[in-house]
Amino acid sequence: MDTRTNLPVVGMVGAGQLARMTHQAAIPLGQSLRILAADADDGAALVASDVLIGSHTDLAALRELAAGADVVTFDHEHVPTEHIRALLAEGHTVFPGPDALICAQDKQVMRERLGKLGAPCPRWAPVDTPADLDAFAGGSWPVVLKAARGGYDGKGVWLVGSADEGQRLVTQLRAAGTPLIVEERVALRRELAAVVARSPFGQVAAYPVVETVQLDGICVEVIAPAPGLPEQRAIEAQQLAIRIANELGVVGVLAVELFETGSGDEADGGLVVNELAMRPHNSAHWTIEGARTSQFEQHLRAVLDYPLGATGLTAPWVVMANVLGGEPGGMGIDERLHHLMAELPDAKVHLYGKQVRPGRKIGHVTVLGDDLAAVRDRAARAAAWLRDGS
Amino acid sequence: MDTRTNLPVVGMVGAGQLARMTHQAAIPLGQSLRILAADADDGAALVASDVLIGSHTDLAALRELAAGADVVTFDHEHVPTEHIRALLAEGHTVFPGPDALICAQDKQVMRERLGKLGAPCPRWAPVDTPADLDAFAGGSWPVVLKAARGGYDGKGVWLVGSADEGQRLVTQLRAAGTPLIVEERVALRRELAAVVARSPFGQVAAYPVVETVQLDGICVEVIAPAPGLPEQRAIEAQQLAIRIANELGVVGVLAVELFETGSGDEADGGLVVNELAMRPHNSAHWTIEGARTSQFEQHLRAVLDYPLGATGLTAPWVVMANVLGGEPGGMGIDERLHHLMAELPDAKVHLYGKQVRPGRKIGHVTVLGDDLAAVRDRAARAAAWLRDGS
Repeated sequence: MDTRTNLPVVGMVGAGQLARMTHQAAIPLGQSLRILAADADDGAALVASDVLIGSHTDLAALRELAAGADVVTFDHEHVPTEHIRALLAEGHTVFPGPDALICAQDKQVMRERLGKLGAPCPRWAPVDTPADLDAFAGGSWPVVLKAARGGYDGKGVWLVGSADEGQRLVTQLRAAGTPLIVEERVALRRELAAVVARSPFGQVAAYPVVETVQLDGICVEVIAPAPGLPEQRAIEAQQLAIRIANELGVVGVLAVELFETGSGDEADGGLVVNELAMRPHNSAHWTIEGARTSQFEQHLRAVLDYPLGATGLTAPWVVMANVLGGEPGGMGIDERLHHLMAELPDAKVHLYGKQVRPGRKIGHVTVLGDDLAAVRDRAARAAAWLRDGS
Repeated sequence: MDTRTNLPVVGMVGAGQLARMTHQAAIPLGQSLRILAADADDGAALVASDVLIGSHTDLAALRELAAGADVVTFDHEHVPTEHIRALLAEGHTVFPGPDALICAQDKQVMRERLGKLGAPCPRWAPVDTPADLDAFAGGSWPVVLKAARGGYDGKGVWLVGSADEGQRLVTQLRAAGTPLIVEERVALRRELAAVVARSPFGQVAAYPVVETVQLDGICVEVIAPAPGLPEQRAIEAQQLAIRIANELGVVGVLAVELFETGSGDEADGGLVVNELAMRPHNSAHWTIEGARTSQFEQHLRAVLDYPLGATGLTAPWVVMANVLGGEPGGMGIDERLHHLMAELPDAKVHLYGKQVRPGRKIGHVTVLGDDLAAVRDRAARAAAWLRDGS
């Protein structure tokens, strides 16, 4: 409890853009996010007052964060499970808890748990040797090899086209100690995300299901709601996410990344779970302006065990485009921002306080409106202005 | 320029709720507001990273703020003009500049300047002695006596009903050194506000004209757009505000508080200027969710000389209700927040990080929707929950 405001304090491990935007959402709730940052120049550390510098793998740093907080939560999935258990044993409150969070940390555990729930998943198997991979493929390549831990934004995922390639990759990755699983390559029409939040009290709130568009494994665009998704399919996706949140005991935001199966424009009615994330997620950044309650406020409400906020759309269509760092040279970010604002006065800009590096997510833009094609076009143009000024 | 983000830095004098909400708006722009706070527990100081502690009347503190900022702006009007001129003389950029800001600091100067512009004002006169007041009243009481400097929220305004009362008040206030003016009591139907922003480049953007509802001189409710205001009258009010912004050379947000003259439900077509504010203003807090660009983002864009943002409404009706501190005792703020969120999941809460004191503005709530009566009712209920839990 902060004695200056008589309100509880939320501590967040990690100080990237998710913590930055969570702090932004904390301010109107009377809160000030307490943050454990790896570096004083991390995006969230630049804007918050209550910042500790330390590693998320250092139990002493985690203890210091927890000592000044009523609840501890996460900007990323990389805190060791044993450290979370140590905090719990010492009487701290941590959401999501380790038994839920492990499913966002370890793809093998995730697949096992989802299998037990009967949630639709690709066919999969653990991989320890090249022979495991061959046996799974059964001569039918390609298959998808994944690092069970540590992957993000397309990293840690390999499309393996042959037994020879698999032999080389598995040998090399297992030698480096990387735990692996293999999954069938799903015939997918597009990717969707169902984002929900759950409180300790057990209340769950679901956002409209969105389409996520990836390029080279990185999300570049999110469209809310997912265009042309039949209402029954949307409800099915939301119910699946709610069931996963309940069964795993998630507290906070849960993003369920889904494949809509089929080919071309033809959906065949199937949904399979691709990944889980248990924190505010890129697929719901659009909620800052596009939903009555942003995912960041919702995550705070959930971990504080406050009643959850309304999740309805604020416009018929909302499109978020990620801003990736462009090549060095040319206009600086400040000049790019000038041009963007002059051309698109309704685009909502979110910069993460990061140094620009090619391909790095440095921000996002959100555009709302009545005409999907126009909204997508404006969002893409806004993101392009910030990327390379053209 | 912040070398970590390659973006300019805005310094703000004062650390109340306006600075707090401006910092919130700075985060998505890649900014982090640099703040001069009187006290480390001020609302904005609780949530920002770049905070100096010092007085707005201390030139050394102002210089330190300016030294780390590309532009200096204000959370309030109380910085001495000579200090602002000193900063300018030393090469700093300050918006709004002293020649504009003086009209928000001194009601006599404001009336003189507005008179020269031909802006509609109540009949008024400076007051040095009780005889000045008598001469202005000409036997027709009541009249409105105002402190030319230092008033806010109804403080510094006296409705004077008789020569005797005037004699006593003027003698007492002049003995205390308070500069005074007198104004006719305007037959007003209601109060309106026209809020605009202007950049150094000369771009001006106007928000929809709103109705402000006062109780005991304190704004308790703002309705956007002003119900039943004829379009021509709304345009006239916006054009008046734009003209004042241009003629005074305002940079940043300008709020023009207006009286709509007439009586009862009958407007007689007249508008007169009541007050000016040159900073984000209570009459535009609704813009955080209710306009495409909030007044706080707009103020930052203006003082940074960025192109201004779109000002359109995001819903047919937007109502903001101020939350005033209730009597001590009963439920704490955290429990009140629980109840409010449970009952009104779509209400947007803004708490200012202040200790609760009776009558003190500790936050506001905003509700949006299609049905004005329902939106007003929900906003009033939300504010009442936070005030006293009932």
